[in-house]
Amino acid sequence: MEDFTSLPTTAPEELDKDEIKDLTDDLRKKLRKLQPLLFAESKHSVLIVLQGMDASGKDGTVKGVFNGVNPMGCRVKAYKAPTEEERAHDFLWRIHSHAPAKGMIQIFNRSHYEDVLVPRVKNWIDMDEVKRRYNHINAWEQLLKDSGTQILKFYLHISEEEQSRRFDQRLEDPEKRWKYKSSDLAEAKLWPEYRKAFADIFETCAEAEPWQIIPADDKWYRDYLISTAVVERLESLNMRYPQEIV
Amino acid sequence: MEDFTSLPTTAPEELDKDEIKDLTDDLRKKLRKLQPLLFAESKHSVLIVLQGMDASGKDGTVKGVFNGVNPMGCRVKAYKAPTEEERAHDFLWRIHSHAPAKGMIQIFNRSHYEDVLVPRVKNWIDMDEVKRRYNHINAWEQLLKDSGTQILKFYLHISEEEQSRRFDQRLEDPEKRWKYKSSDLAEAKLWPEYRKAFADIFETCAEAEPWQIIPADDKWYRDYLISTAVVERLESLNMRYPQEIV
Repeated sequence: MEDFTSLPTTAPEELDKDEIKDLTDDLRKKLRKLQPLLFAESKHSVLIVLQGMDASGKDGTVKGVFNGVNPMGCRVKAYKAPTEEERAHDFLWRIHSHAPAKGMIQIFNRSHYEDVLVPRVKNWIDMDEVKRRYNHINAWEQLLKDSGTQILKFYLHISEEEQSRRFDQRLEDPEKRWKYKSSDLAEAKLWPEYRKAFADIFETCAEAEPWQIIPADDKWYRDYLISTAVVERLESLNMRYPQEIV
Repeated sequence: MEDFTSLPTTAPEELDKDEIKDLTDDLRKKLRKLQPLLFAESKHSVLIVLQGMDASGKDGTVKGVFNGVNPMGCRVKAYKAPTEEERAHDFLWRIHSHAPAKGMIQIFNRSHYEDVLVPRVKNWIDMDEVKRRYNHINAWEQLLKDSGTQILKFYLHISEEEQSRRFDQRLEDPEKRWKYKSSDLAEAKLWPEYRKAFADIFETCAEAEPWQIIPADDKWYRDYLISTAVVERLESLNMRYPQEIV
């Protein structure tokens, strides 16, 4: 893969924001029709992985793309630092338990990829262990794929400037302030290390499913791109409402 | 591996049954001392996989080897035919959730290997799928091993004659009758197919951990062999009670 850091983080200038927003509305409507079909047919499941630096818009994507989808058929799991019980198991244990059942859309807000990001950047594990984990991730994603799971992996690609701007907004807005942690700034200083770790992931963990790098400085463009990818994938499944009576 | 069906199912004639039973008692005592150490150190976990034909003694092994071990540190999971929810996931989903935490002994009475036995013998899946599952099993076992899990896989090897004898006992004994299912006889007719499936498993699913074929017609010998294997494995870990105050 070409060095992802050189890829644009913003929408192409020639795009009309209002026009794109209308298209995204149409896509959301399509998604609201496709999800019950996925549920009724129960042949496939969908796993959506969202990764990105702090304030890259993972929560915003869930809201911007999946709001309005029936929560009975769509679950979000946000992964935080592992608990003591989770750390007493292999790193995929807490991930696998949330794999989607047939008919379901499962969104991972952060995911198993955290385990080849944070511990690597902080040097808690060596590169041999990182590579072992890459292999286990590839095998696990293939397991899901072999069992009828559609995987979509999105990296929300924002610029450092946009991240600073969002941190400032969080500090200023009383309704966003709770999202700000003083440790965020320390993490932000590690961008070069995270960039390297992400680049390796995009290259190595693409066997079962490649990564989609989403320019994410402009939220309207990000939501448009992700809605498009999700709707196109669901449409490609040629799903039908079951007609047989069982 | 040499054709396992030609391996003995009985104890060597020269062995003294009472002597072996005394040795097994000693091993059980050792196990009762090693388990709290495993729990206290919480560095390793142990996964014991028991497979074998009907009436081969899987339940009896759990009782014969692990009775007296503190149940707080030792769990048994008996796998039956998958439920509807389990079938809506990949075949390892219901297995992975019962992987042992550090410090724990987990016994699988039947296991993920059922998914490359029953559906194969009944032709519900083709050999391509069987081979994909072998790969996933190997990767999954390696994942556990990489995370500090000691895996021990035992095949309880009984003769067809011994199986018939045990079926008859089950029918005659009011306290054993509940274990008998009329479908057991139909399954028993498929021995040649199961033998072939087991032979492939022993050969292919040995990457992370090889199988131990246990002559299981004589219960006292079976318990002795399995106790020996478990105790030796635990002793090889050189565990120490932690002395640091945290």
